[in-house]
Amino acid sequence: MSKDKIKAAIVGATGYGGAELIRLLQAHPHVEVSCVLSSSSSGVPLSASFPHLTNLIELELESIEPANIKAKADVVFLATPAGVSAELTPKLLEQGLKVIDLSGDLRLKDGAVYEKWYKRPPASEDVLAQAVYGLSEIYGESVVGRAAISNPGCFPTATLLGLIPAVKADWIDPATIIIDAKTGVSGAGRGTGLGTHYGEINESVKAYKVNAHQHIPEIEQVLGEAAGAEVVVTFTTHLIPMTRGILSTMYASVNEKRSTQEFIDLYRTFYAGRPFVRIRENGVMPATKEVSGSNYCDIGFSADERTGRVTIVSVIDNMVKGAAGQAIQNLNLMMGWDEAEGLRFVPMYP
Amino acid sequence: MSKDKIKAAIVGATGYGGAELIRLLQAHPHVEVSCVLSSSSSGVPLSASFPHLTNLIELELESIEPANIKAKADVVFLATPAGVSAELTPKLLEQGLKVIDLSGDLRLKDGAVYEKWYKRPPASEDVLAQAVYGLSEIYGESVVGRAAISNPGCFPTATLLGLIPAVKADWIDPATIIIDAKTGVSGAGRGTGLGTHYGEINESVKAYKVNAHQHIPEIEQVLGEAAGAEVVVTFTTHLIPMTRGILSTMYASVNEKRSTQEFIDLYRTFYAGRPFVRIRENGVMPATKEVSGSNYCDIGFSADERTGRVTIVSVIDNMVKGAAGQAIQNLNLMMGWDEAEGLRFVPMYP
Amino acid sequence: MSKDKIKAAIVGATGYGGAELIRLLQAHPHVEVSCVLSSSSSGVPLSASFPHLTNLIELELESIEPANIKAKADVVFLATPAGVSAELTPKLLEQGLKVIDLSGDLRLKDGAVYEKWYKRPPASEDVLAQAVYGLSEIYGESVVGRAAISNPGCFPTATLLGLIPAVKADWIDPATIIIDAKTGVSGAGRGTGLGTHYGEINESVKAYKVNAHQHIPEIEQVLGEAAGAEVVVTFTTHLIPMTRGILSTMYASVNEKRSTQEFIDLYRTFYAGRPFVRIRENGVMPATKEVSGSNYCDIGFSADERTGRVTIVSVIDNMVKGAAGQAIQNLNLMMGWDEAEGLRFVPMYP
Amino acid sequence: MSKDKIKAAIVGATGYGGAELIRLLQAHPHVEVSCVLSSSSSGVPLSASFPHLTNLIELELESIEPANIKAKADVVFLATPAGVSAELTPKLLEQGLKVIDLSGDLRLKDGAVYEKWYKRPPASEDVLAQAVYGLSEIYGESVVGRAAISNPGCFPTATLLGLIPAVKADWIDPATIIIDAKTGVSGAGRGTGLGTHYGEINESVKAYKVNAHQHIPEIEQVLGEAAGAEVVVTFTTHLIPMTRGILSTMYASVNEKRSTQEFIDLYRTFYAGRPFVRIRENGVMPATKEVSGSNYCDIGFSADERTGRVTIVSVIDNMVKGAAGQAIQNLNLMMGWDEAEGLRFVPMYP
Repeated sequence: MSKDKIKAAIVGATGYGGAELIRLLQAHPHVEVSCVLSSSSSGVPLSASFPHLTNLIELELESIEPANIKAKADVVFLATPAGVSAELTPKLLEQGLKVIDLSGDLRLKDGAVYEKWYKRPPASEDVLAQAVYGLSEIYGESVVGRAAISNPGCFPTATLLGLIPAVKADWIDPATIIIDAKTGVSGAGRGTGLGTHYGEINESVKAYKVNAHQHIPEIEQVLGEAAGAEVVVTFTTHLIPMTRGILSTMYASVNEKRSTQEFIDLYRTFYAGRPFVRIRENGVMPATKEVSGSNYCDIGFSADERTGRVTIVSVIDNMVKGAAGQAIQNLNLMMGWDEAEGLRFVPMYP
Repeated sequence: MSKDKIKAAIVGATGYGGAELIRLLQAHPHVEVSCVLSSSSSGVPLSASFPHLTNLIELELESIEPANIKAKADVVFLATPAGVSAELTPKLLEQGLKVIDLSGDLRLKDGAVYEKWYKRPPASEDVLAQAVYGLSEIYGESVVGRAAISNPGCFPTATLLGLIPAVKADWIDPATIIIDAKTGVSGAGRGTGLGTHYGEINESVKAYKVNAHQHIPEIEQVLGEAAGAEVVVTFTTHLIPMTRGILSTMYASVNEKRSTQEFIDLYRTFYAGRPFVRIRENGVMPATKEVSGSNYCDIGFSADERTGRVTIVSVIDNMVKGAAGQAIQNLNLMMGWDEAEGLRFVPMYP
Repeated sequence: MSKDKIKAAIVGATGYGGAELIRLLQAHPHVEVSCVLSSSSSGVPLSASFPHLTNLIELELESIEPANIKAKADVVFLATPAGVSAELTPKLLEQGLKVIDLSGDLRLKDGAVYEKWYKRPPASEDVLAQAVYGLSEIYGESVVGRAAISNPGCFPTATLLGLIPAVKADWIDPATIIIDAKTGVSGAGRGTGLGTHYGEINESVKAYKVNAHQHIPEIEQVLGEAAGAEVVVTFTTHLIPMTRGILSTMYASVNEKRSTQEFIDLYRTFYAGRPFVRIRENGVMPATKEVSGSNYCDIGFSADERTGRVTIVSVIDNMVKGAAGQAIQNLNLMMGWDEAEGLRFVPMYP
Repeated sequence: MSKDKIKAAIVGATGYGGAELIRLLQAHPHVEVSCVLSSSSSGVPLSASFPHLTNLIELELESIEPANIKAKADVVFLATPAGVSAELTPKLLEQGLKVIDLSGDLRLKDGAVYEKWYKRPPASEDVLAQAVYGLSEIYGESVVGRAAISNPGCFPTATLLGLIPAVKADWIDPATIIIDAKTGVSGAGRGTGLGTHYGEINESVKAYKVNAHQHIPEIEQVLGEAAGAEVVVTFTTHLIPMTRGILSTMYASVNEKRSTQEFIDLYRTFYAGRPFVRIRENGVMPATKEVSGSNYCDIGFSADERTGRVTIVSVIDNMVKGAAGQAIQNLNLMMGWDEAEGLRFVPMYP
């Protein structure tokens, strides 16, 4: 069966992003997970880290060795912490491997901006030039046939899909954009610390990295491209007591009076033919549970005459459309397959 | 595409069980959901009740009319409250439809026992005789080719899969069986009341229907068959603050000294070749999250020399193996397909 | 012991607000709960509705009868749905009772505004004129000696305490204020419906009543008073999966450049001597869990040079500072007692 | 004000147990927290570890030095991990300090049993002999005037209060006792690891330390004393997704037929005059939320003729009656004060 499938390696397989890639790829008709790699453990079965994979995947964790990966895989997913793919990507590309990077290392085109927000040295200009930013619904065409894809961040995905059509249509004033995002805990990864301790998170909500989140320059870079001018945004992230899901509430002043229905129509036209963006009816706002486990991004609107502002709400599953799902969507585009291949999951409700 | 698929009707489509059937059937290669029915609403799109199905299923809810169902479907899933299928099943069978009933109406062979525990009149003896009890791993062979299947309850599924091999092997004394079960809230359905109010459930655990739960006679009936003699069990259900999942902790005295490993080996042999039961390694107990969204039942053991008892822990997703997933597994068996068809979901973790 | 205590009646004692009043008043040195009233049940012990009060309060629920209340109480707390206190308050005042109303009925001075946002007839002008708005830290002096107090809403309390000092100091531009609030489920009360169903709320977040929440005019009325001019705000509420707590994230453009520390100093000066507002250190944002069960409102700041905006985050326990606790704080002020009497609870952590 | 208060030192003040002692002692009329100690940090304000204590307690953390403690305190609470108090208690007693130990170090009278279950060396026989086991409702008289108290474990407290009256009355057969306990996550403390990671715990339940939990010998020791003979029990702990609360479900065969009401009457008589045990009405089982934040232990019963067993359900807040609250109750008894002093909190609901 596997002879007509391409082979995928997953680096960072002991993290949540790695586990989600495996879950989704097991259902993909054209891909087989051929090796799983981790910097922290090797020689042990992956199912020892993730018992939910018992009987489902028999692979052992391997240490990260580009030549070895080349022997076993065609494409590499990097589900690694900041700093890893900046170093690893050029070596993998040299081996002729295709790379889809889920970290933030290759997203910012300007290394100085990366250094400012990530507080570490950037990837080389050469690598940054090769990597295309894979926000599938916006840059899908640029992804086709590419060797290196930088998968967008979870917050930028929800936020940019919610803002770009209005910015491109010049319906809202980019200088007035304020983004208030809420995320489940899985976005913080499987690493341990007080910040993911159940006793601290449950029955609580807090803002974090206020005006300092590394996704701010990513959002600004892409919105700037859409607006054709530099954009500066206010962006706040909140941690809420749930495992999966991001909801981004976006506020902006409208350039001229528009009704809620006009926004709905604008977005429906913009996203026509894209299977994973769903625009809600007038009066209905999406909930994160309504996209849980799926690759959907659902968007709702409320234009307010009183204030001259529009409120846009978008939701995604941070592990799927915000990470592993969009990475596979990018693989599909890269390979020339249907972008929805292997991703037609119905959201799990409740 | 749909010409080589059978058509399925779902009665009770506005409940959680109905929604889960739709989620799973959308991924089934041989089945198409052709109509959705509800006693409470008709003429409105299903996605008005379940926005997560937006763009995924365009069907409108219909009222329940056997002849009309016959015109549109080959098989009917009944995800209805107690009392409905006792009346509806004979009419559907008369129409030549196949029926898979997810309610408790057809599970107890003795109508008097049903009446005692369910506090309502039982189905007719004729219907009860036609319906086979679809605990797939135990009665899968009896399901093949049948027209009416009674899908097991969620608690009985987790519990019986955990107890039957030891009872059949005569390793434990049935008279000593005590079952302590914990369930998420989705098992109570989508109906509203103080019992499902977030403020009452969150950050709390309680026992309910102690010594009075309607799944007690179901468990006793099947265990009695396995033991070849009447069995009486103590069974307690607890509601815990989560949406999905059942964990059943089972206690029994062993007839002669057995190690944990011996239990593991016994069960591995018993369930060899059955794709949806996974026996854990010595020293590892399963968590409900490790089967979330999947059709697995995972089982762990601890034999205790000090007390002469074995503790058996089994987990399922109550909406999948405890309801919709097993129903589809039964459809697969009924139709002579691979029992795992359309059910090879990797659990969603975290 | 009770001879030197005043007697309090609680109308709406079967709701969450009523229960919280009872919890807090049991610890108050100068108050005794003398009768509990409910429109839905009478003649049954309160502990049948609220088993957590077993052995703690032996009162039976009574129906609502002003003359009867007068015979038993000195002060009446109204923890009732919209519409009740508009009618009940004048009758209670006529009896010479003091009234503290926790509903929204008496908060808006302009009946037409009430009618627009609440979709029901307003209280009489006479009653509205008598009721003073009890945002304790702002209007505490006006409360002293009054007979009728309108207790602020939960969202307005968190939001106004976070905005008023900056508005009064003219540091921020009121026309740019955007408020993004997050609340636990208890704010919706104990009534049942899909909106409080555990299966719908858990593992999900959604925006609701976008640009239509009845707390908008309340916030605008009070901010307008602080600004000395009409203020219009954008305000969005989000329901998140927790029981207690409100976090309000507030955004505004600064009139001239101010550092985070300047905001901290401004607020510390403004709230000097007020026991229940705590201003956080530079770099530290409050979490709702850090005020759980207590009457505190904690506030943090981040001034951002890049955008010229300040982000203000305030948290309260919606049941305490957002309802029952502030009501008792108002009783304390009304009676000339220390405003913290009976309210010196340490937050419950974790 | 503090001149007529005794002074309390809290060792382990950066943990959850320490925080809860501070919360409760702040409300105690006869005690003042005079110093807070930690092995991991010193010289920093306690509120840096616990922001919820901002403005409430101005103490800095100190390192653990018995002579220094003697200079500042009359009584010492040890909220420390296993192993600490075995060494520290004799030094504190030497200084003439009173000691209340919340760890497991002094609970087991037989050092060999401690070593077997705790996998570390036991305290000296001398110290073990001095420490009295402070299960207040059972051993309250022995606590009076003592210098060293070993505070019971959380699971043993809930379980023993639920079993002792029936065992002492010889109504149940101790050889048949099976205990199935469920706990919130706070019982695991504030230490970080995968076992307390939100992503692993939320939406999941699992059994842990099956047949190996260190509270087993503690339960057996005390039940053995009540029965007048050695008792061996089956005991399983489950971790459920909530922060606070323990529910213990206990099963045993009755020696002769007894009704549920007879059990209720037996327990009401047994606990008459003890303020913190509440026996529920026939047909009503307690939920952990109904004791949250309070020192109550609530107990319900169901005697089952079919099986000849009784099911007993008891609930506590593990941080209060299961730790800090009972420690203060023991201090009250030790000092000859009313045992409820400072502990008359109404449970926080919801």
